Amino acid sequence: MIELKTFSPNKNKKMSLISALNWRYATKRMNGLKIPQQKLNNILDAIALAPSSFGLQPFSILVIENEELLKKIKPIASNQPQITEASALLVFASWDTITSQKINHYILQIATQRNVSIDSLQQFKEYMEILLKQSDADNLIWSSKQTYIALGVALVAAAEEEVDSTPMEGFDKNLLDDLLQLKEKGLKSSLLLTLGFRDSKTDYLANLKKVRREKSKLFISIV
Amino acid sequence: MIELKTFSPNKNKKMSLISALNWRYATKRMNGLKIPQQKLNNILDAIALAPSSFGLQPFSILVIENEELLKKIKPIASNQPQITEASALLVFASWDTITSQKINHYILQIATQRNVSIDSLQQFKEYMEILLKQSDADNLIWSSKQTYIALGVALVAAAEEEVDSTPMEGFDKNLLDDLLQLKEKGLKSSLLLTLGFRDSKTDYLANLKKVRREKSKLFISIV
Repeated sequence: MIELKTFSPNKNKKMSLISALNWRYATKRMNGLKIPQQKLNNILDAIALAPSSFGLQPFSILVIENEELLKKIKPIASNQPQITEASALLVFASWDTITSQKINHYILQIATQRNVSIDSLQQFKEYMEILLKQSDADNLIWSSKQTYIALGVALVAAAEEEVDSTPMEGFDKNLLDDLLQLKEKGLKSSLLLTLGFRDSKTDYLANLKKVRREKSKLFISIV
Repeated sequence: MIELKTFSPNKNKKMSLISALNWRYATKRMNGLKIPQQKLNNILDAIALAPSSFGLQPFSILVIENEELLKKIKPIASNQPQITEASALLVFASWDTITSQKINHYILQIATQRNVSIDSLQQFKEYMEILLKQSDADNLIWSSKQTYIALGVALVAAAEEEVDSTPMEGFDKNLLDDLLQLKEKGLKSSLLLTLGFRDSKTDYLANLKKVRREKSKLFISIV
């Protein structure tokens, strides 16, 4: 594996996945510069294509670039400076309930896009309806987990665009939900991701070695 | 976005991320062929580099290629045929408890790899020790969520290697934990991922259109 923290951007060539994963890190300080719109669009396109259980995508993503709002969010997120130094803040918010209405809407969407009958999707629909037997609390955990897959894809997408990012779990979900009126939207905040550019001069983490568990401990091979 | 389900492999060029995400799908039938070892290694390298909260990586991944064992796992995983048609099954299993011993071990690892004193990591350590105040049940949800980030990265890595994959939540966690003796390892199964090659002839999903929520509904922009 290549250590590539100080990678020099090459505009004609995308980084390989491994290079991109080595280049990225949980950026602690950003320099306030805006991400080109095309790069942001590419990251959002990747998030939209991220897989989810049943393909249901039980979440929305708020893309916040409003400075006044970001100033209000900062104290809710442990005063982390990236909130206001970033170009954009993504709030991954999962559905707070799974309803038959939402499942029916998804089934209709599949039928329309694939030009098949709703009847032909009956078995898939019944399989998905297992969710309706679970408690709202369990479904919220489930839908929140789906946002973590999308986050994984977003982190790769950002790195391949040479955009820095910081995933965050350390924020007050209730306060953020109130501020963004997420309950009214049927959503519950799950994760934050700032997108921007690292400030290598002020970020203590920018040039530190990436620490990972030994592969011999992380992987257990059964051949 | 490009629809690229029938992408022709080009050995000299990696797919772009968006192309790879369009190419991949939750493969329902695989053809039994083995993945070249180098491709499997590349996917595992990407998983090892996947981000996690605090960088703690509170999970292990079992890489199972043993046919006898896979036959035993199949009925535990709703008899999904990919379990035995795949080249390898990855079992993402999260730590069942977070202990001060594990945190101390991680702090020591950081100190060693970055050549800094343990004292200098005191604040970071205390921050992480918030986990020790949470219940084991809450920490299990948290550690399980971290495996979903790794899954997101794994799905991208597999697609960029033109390896098909199927993420699975539909399995009996308790039965699988017993079979793989995960409790004895301090682990709890979280997710499955089969890796192999699609069988386009028998897989009804291989040529169906990918269905995703409209971006106007998935994203909420606040500028």
